Amino acid sequence: MNTFPCEPVKYEGPDSRNPLAFKHYKADEIIAGKSMADWFRFGCAYWHTMRGTGADPFGVGTADHPWDDGSDSIANAQNRARVFFDFLQKTQIDYYCFHDRDIAPECATLAESNKALDQVADTFEELQKETGKKLLWGTACAFVHPRYQQGAATSPNANVFAYVGAQVKKAMEITHRLGGEGYVFWGGREGYASLINTDMKRELDHLAAFLHMAVDYKKEIGFTGQFYIEPKPQEPTTHQYDSDAAACLNFLRQYDLLDHFKLNIETNHATLAGHTMEHELTTALDAGALGSIDANMGTPNVGWDTDQFPTDLYLTTNTMLVLMKMGGFTTGGLNFDAKLRRQSLDAADLIHGHIGGMDTCARGLLAAAELMEKGDLSDAVAKRYAGWQAPEAAAMLKGERTLEEIAARVEREGIDPRPVSGRQEYLENLVNRRL
Amino acid sequence: MNTFPCEPVKYEGPDSRNPLAFKHYKADEIIAGKSMADWFRFGCAYWHTMRGTGADPFGVGTADHPWDDGSDSIANAQNRARVFFDFLQKTQIDYYCFHDRDIAPECATLAESNKALDQVADTFEELQKETGKKLLWGTACAFVHPRYQQGAATSPNANVFAYVGAQVKKAMEITHRLGGEGYVFWGGREGYASLINTDMKRELDHLAAFLHMAVDYKKEIGFTGQFYIEPKPQEPTTHQYDSDAAACLNFLRQYDLLDHFKLNIETNHATLAGHTMEHELTTALDAGALGSIDANMGTPNVGWDTDQFPTDLYLTTNTMLVLMKMGGFTTGGLNFDAKLRRQSLDAADLIHGHIGGMDTCARGLLAAAELMEKGDLSDAVAKRYAGWQAPEAAAMLKGERTLEEIAARVEREGIDPRPVSGRQEYLENLVNRRL
Amino acid sequence: MNTFPCEPVKYEGPDSRNPLAFKHYKADEIIAGKSMADWFRFGCAYWHTMRGTGADPFGVGTADHPWDDGSDSIANAQNRARVFFDFLQKTQIDYYCFHDRDIAPECATLAESNKALDQVADTFEELQKETGKKLLWGTACAFVHPRYQQGAATSPNANVFAYVGAQVKKAMEITHRLGGEGYVFWGGREGYASLINTDMKRELDHLAAFLHMAVDYKKEIGFTGQFYIEPKPQEPTTHQYDSDAAACLNFLRQYDLLDHFKLNIETNHATLAGHTMEHELTTALDAGALGSIDANMGTPNVGWDTDQFPTDLYLTTNTMLVLMKMGGFTTGGLNFDAKLRRQSLDAADLIHGHIGGMDTCARGLLAAAELMEKGDLSDAVAKRYAGWQAPEAAAMLKGERTLEEIAARVEREGIDPRPVSGRQEYLENLVNRRL
Amino acid sequence: MNTFPCEPVKYEGPDSRNPLAFKHYKADEIIAGKSMADWFRFGCAYWHTMRGTGADPFGVGTADHPWDDGSDSIANAQNRARVFFDFLQKTQIDYYCFHDRDIAPECATLAESNKALDQVADTFEELQKETGKKLLWGTACAFVHPRYQQGAATSPNANVFAYVGAQVKKAMEITHRLGGEGYVFWGGREGYASLINTDMKRELDHLAAFLHMAVDYKKEIGFTGQFYIEPKPQEPTTHQYDSDAAACLNFLRQYDLLDHFKLNIETNHATLAGHTMEHELTTALDAGALGSIDANMGTPNVGWDTDQFPTDLYLTTNTMLVLMKMGGFTTGGLNFDAKLRRQSLDAADLIHGHIGGMDTCARGLLAAAELMEKGDLSDAVAKRYAGWQAPEAAAMLKGERTLEEIAARVEREGIDPRPVSGRQEYLENLVNRRL
Repeated sequence: MNTFPCEPVKYEGPDSRNPLAFKHYKADEIIAGKSMADWFRFGCAYWHTMRGTGADPFGVGTADHPWDDGSDSIANAQNRARVFFDFLQKTQIDYYCFHDRDIAPECATLAESNKALDQVADTFEELQKETGKKLLWGTACAFVHPRYQQGAATSPNANVFAYVGAQVKKAMEITHRLGGEGYVFWGGREGYASLINTDMKRELDHLAAFLHMAVDYKKEIGFTGQFYIEPKPQEPTTHQYDSDAAACLNFLRQYDLLDHFKLNIETNHATLAGHTMEHELTTALDAGALGSIDANMGTPNVGWDTDQFPTDLYLTTNTMLVLMKMGGFTTGGLNFDAKLRRQSLDAADLIHGHIGGMDTCARGLLAAAELMEKGDLSDAVAKRYAGWQAPEAAAMLKGERTLEEIAARVEREGIDPRPVSGRQEYLENLVNRRL
Repeated sequence: MNTFPCEPVKYEGPDSRNPLAFKHYKADEIIAGKSMADWFRFGCAYWHTMRGTGADPFGVGTADHPWDDGSDSIANAQNRARVFFDFLQKTQIDYYCFHDRDIAPECATLAESNKALDQVADTFEELQKETGKKLLWGTACAFVHPRYQQGAATSPNANVFAYVGAQVKKAMEITHRLGGEGYVFWGGREGYASLINTDMKRELDHLAAFLHMAVDYKKEIGFTGQFYIEPKPQEPTTHQYDSDAAACLNFLRQYDLLDHFKLNIETNHATLAGHTMEHELTTALDAGALGSIDANMGTPNVGWDTDQFPTDLYLTTNTMLVLMKMGGFTTGGLNFDAKLRRQSLDAADLIHGHIGGMDTCARGLLAAAELMEKGDLSDAVAKRYAGWQAPEAAAMLKGERTLEEIAARVEREGIDPRPVSGRQEYLENLVNRRL
Repeated sequence: MNTFPCEPVKYEGPDSRNPLAFKHYKADEIIAGKSMADWFRFGCAYWHTMRGTGADPFGVGTADHPWDDGSDSIANAQNRARVFFDFLQKTQIDYYCFHDRDIAPECATLAESNKALDQVADTFEELQKETGKKLLWGTACAFVHPRYQQGAATSPNANVFAYVGAQVKKAMEITHRLGGEGYVFWGGREGYASLINTDMKRELDHLAAFLHMAVDYKKEIGFTGQFYIEPKPQEPTTHQYDSDAAACLNFLRQYDLLDHFKLNIETNHATLAGHTMEHELTTALDAGALGSIDANMGTPNVGWDTDQFPTDLYLTTNTMLVLMKMGGFTTGGLNFDAKLRRQSLDAADLIHGHIGGMDTCARGLLAAAELMEKGDLSDAVAKRYAGWQAPEAAAMLKGERTLEEIAARVEREGIDPRPVSGRQEYLENLVNRRL
Repeated sequence: MNTFPCEPVKYEGPDSRNPLAFKHYKADEIIAGKSMADWFRFGCAYWHTMRGTGADPFGVGTADHPWDDGSDSIANAQNRARVFFDFLQKTQIDYYCFHDRDIAPECATLAESNKALDQVADTFEELQKETGKKLLWGTACAFVHPRYQQGAATSPNANVFAYVGAQVKKAMEITHRLGGEGYVFWGGREGYASLINTDMKRELDHLAAFLHMAVDYKKEIGFTGQFYIEPKPQEPTTHQYDSDAAACLNFLRQYDLLDHFKLNIETNHATLAGHTMEHELTTALDAGALGSIDANMGTPNVGWDTDQFPTDLYLTTNTMLVLMKMGGFTTGGLNFDAKLRRQSLDAADLIHGHIGGMDTCARGLLAAAELMEKGDLSDAVAKRYAGWQAPEAAAMLKGERTLEEIAARVEREGIDPRPVSGRQEYLENLVNRRL
């Protein structure tokens, strides 16, 4: 069996009672000058959708994948790919993302693993042609295998660094071959368990050297996709070097990599870092480095990454507000880095999860577009900073005034500023009105 | 009454049962080539020690300060200063730190406040001469007054920016006059309550413009003390722009300020940001930006800044390990940004708090020095990375190898790295042995 | 001036653009057999609305209360009361709640404080008659004054216990006189700063003795209102004895108080305890102890109580789902224990805050009612547990089967259960459809 | 190969530099009237020591267990047991703990699993006789297998309830046969993923019914060991029903189980619940329900259970202070529910981990004993509550005074209590002096 056991999901509108229909996501509806499909560039994560088992630290896998024979054969990998593309078609998802070891088996030697990857990539290439689905980004899995237990590019062991170099080279080539619009470096083991045995500066130097080599190789092979790094504060390590957007930007600036990398921001990583998603998105956007989004959400008050489907309207509205400020994605997209709950066993649950995420994103877009169009929020913000257009105010920002001149003016004019209300409650009510 | 109600605290050694004696801190004992006093350059925080009341969000102040008449008079401010220097003498603390509005009253106009500050500074100058005590750093309080409720240098209101410019100018002058070895910018209100009404990029641009003006003014007046910014993730704002060491460094790099600022790292701010103190210290040190330390600690599992005295031996040992790697402070010091619990009411409690902090720091230094001398930890770390001295390994880091060459070598040599134990438990046992 | 500076807020429906109108809250609309007003029994918190200043640990108050002369006079207290009842009328809020020291000044002696309270209570009594507004619950403030710094009923000092006994006696009498439908014990200082100086068992014994005396006195004066205790995990203490619903219930059971107390559940306290609001509500409901609700919400990822207005539709929907299962309040209500952000300065902001909270509650009620009516969720839950109706299953629960018999049956019948999907994603989509 | 590759660990005293020696743990040293071995009754966790692989949510196992052939055979299970007892002997650990499925394989049917368990238990019985090692407690693993994914005794599926009944019956029998001094119920899956599909009240009713059956069966087979439940707030579920000590006690009281169960308190569970270990221990002790300890600790600021060896002197000192107040364990012990870091690969690391834990516990005992003997802390606490011995104070606690009488006395005597310092800093210094 190699197709997904349901009919293609169609848009039926908000009043539909059909749980297997879109109520809000209408791919070709034009919102603020673009189709919904273009705003979102939805991606499906191969690792969760096809390889997620429901295993957790206290229990083995539970998922029911009738199409999977459980083997590490090429044939099984290729069959899985077919089921996946069928899933993409049935859910109207245009893009996908993968790790090398998700789509093809890890073999006894790197050469054999590379060969397996080539064979499976042939199937992906065919399936892309057949279906028109596209690769949003690829990546290498450099965290599951024991060799990476103490880091990949930041391993104390130089041979591990070399090994991951060879692996990433291949993963970039495959991504390039499949027309990938980006390539992500998620540093699953790039961090430390404890500083007690770690030379953090050295490890970051190594990571930077590694990324510079990747930049060089990208040029060499003519791959023009965007490179991304992905913030996450911890898990599996105690501290991940790419801990949040600011830490990533600091690293990229320090090592002269900011021209070559953007950020792939994930909701549940943002919240584990103690930030809101909109904070991380805005931090990236303000630095010109917002690249792509790993869309999911966490369980409140839970201290690990739960990767749930994004079903919170506030989250999707705030996300879309930032994305609309940016004018939408260029190479990036909104990849559902989301998995079923361990107790959700049926293939149909995968459909419900993605429908829920897509509809919630669509409602977020509609709300954000209306808020942007009416200008409710942006007008309030503009008004709040309006005083900076006064010549003396502007002069201070331009570096045309010294503290001495400013102090003299404060005294001369008897400046004693009276605050004006920030009106947060009023503005929050405006947002709620659009939901 | 204007002296502190106890005898000077003396070193009596580990076996002393006298709670008002040092058991471990011996100012002139030479450890690893420096006196304890020089390693620590202990500072006392005027705001906590003299102005702390014990008020919290649910209750008014409780502290008993018999020397304080409760008025905003200059005379009271000057008397408080005398009590404070008496306290410094009795506790063998060599340095102190202040906010402008701690030491002198806020008056009806800025001009009057400045005048009051001048008068009180006269007293401080005299007391410094009398006692030999020194100013570690000064700063301006730009967070208590309602005018700063929406930020100081990041306020939406240009007049607030001007006002704080005038205030900081004066605070820098006073710090300079008192021979301050540094000046701290703690952005108490530099952050946001909500992104809904905030233009974060604009506010950070403002902050950078402000700091550049401060750098210019520093040169103008010939102040050669070190500038610091101080990371804290939140409180009082929802998000502080200087949220952690990495965020501060990112900001300083982005706005070309890294040559002019170092970081003042505070323990309880580190832990509220989800980091360990040694992580934040190491991040700053690795960037050449570790300047000074606000020594305290938090209550585990409590979500706000409790500013307790640092009485945890693991904390002080780890702190001193980083400080010894740096070779000790230059302009910075170890300022007790620590306050009594609200239920600790007596003047004697202030002494106990500082003794506890100083003795715990001294034990941390002794343990760190022994660990450094024996090389237990550093040898283990060096051994862990030893493989990088091999020519091919070193070549990868120097940018002399491409991914292609590396991949070819991996295949040629059949590289398949086997991990070596990280030995964390063994190393942790070594640390415990020194405590 | 003694009225609130706006027109009464009216219902104008979802399409209204008037920020000072209700879009969803229509007091007399019948939902599932009750008016909205009856479902909510909205209360306004005197402490926040009239006495909140915006002060925080880093800054003084900012609120603009033009009606308040800043004095501790009876006249000012009475005038404030008039403004408050005007506010209740203008916002269509039927109930209010107070602490004794909010509404009347703390004086030099308890006798004088009691007298002041009597005088102000006269005014409240008149205003209740005039306006028809009612007292949801009263309480005593036993946390602000320094005497309570180490606890009130749990203070180590027996005289503090006596003092708070006298104060609570009076507060109960005033609550009774004003027809209060309940009385809350919020143990602001009932907890510990550190176990190092605390006899927790003794303190809990004291608290129980205290509450038993209150129960006795309630009977004595014929007060038939409901007693409540209110869970909160920490703040201002490091650990509050009433830390969450389960801890409160454990205490009430242990000391034989469960017949006399219900719980007043507050959202931001629930989340600070690491729980969801619906968890705490359900825990209380399942124990027959859900009494009243302090409606607010926190800022995600912030470690202290922010007491924001409840503007999250998921929160209010989940809250109303539990409340509908209970059949609505009896003595309790939905009290807005919510305050303006420190930057929200205008009297109008108070109106916006309450409108936002009331409209969001109304939408939560409408969504919950629809979910209940359609039975989407309850059917799924019922189906999930349906197997327990089988005779053998029911017998196990009734204690009619031993482990031995069960084990024999498992072997005999070859029981090897296959899981069925929990369908969480599907159910979450159903909830979203109603919002 | 079936012995552990090192020499038995011996006590060599604090000055030893031998990493494979005890520096502080001397089994037969008498402290406060008992040998160290009797104070601790150290236990080793079979699951971590023998079955821990180092797998985490992002990577496969890494541990090197040369004695394990990787098969599910009985012979392998028996061989593992021999290695384990050798480990116990080499580390001077007197007790051990197991789950049924750790020591013997899960087979195709329950009957076969039971048979396998019997066979392996024969080996354990022999090894106990040979070595004198004893079983601290046994338990059933009711969380790894997919059948338990939605709960075991709280599963919505009645057949799962039956199945776990049969499994627990057998695990109790085996525990009884091996002379276990206790039996633990850790509800790995007893909680919920989401309330949306959960009837919490029903599930708790089921759990109580289940535990009552276990109590009955215990009597039936004459097992006199102690039953324990084990608090943990979350992980793997979103909310575990046994979330903390108070929640467990509330449950036990509600369902009339408190006579039959004590608590097994684990450090890392306490901290994940937002409590300190000493809080949870004290809560249990005060309820007469402190049974046993799962000794480990977490990584600060990490949101999941890391189960590290307890190497923090403050933790072990505070733990031993509570344990000494209790007079030591009766049936319980101090079981190292602790595992190696994923990067610690060598068999020797297992030795280092346990030595570190045991030595840190020994130092905690020595410090606690000295603190108890000198009475520093207890005197301060006693003094703090001394006022309660006054007749009027005592009368209030005994229920001999009404609020009315108390209020009259407050007025009559003009009671206006002045606080006395809580002296937390002073007391914390005393503790540090003993470390």
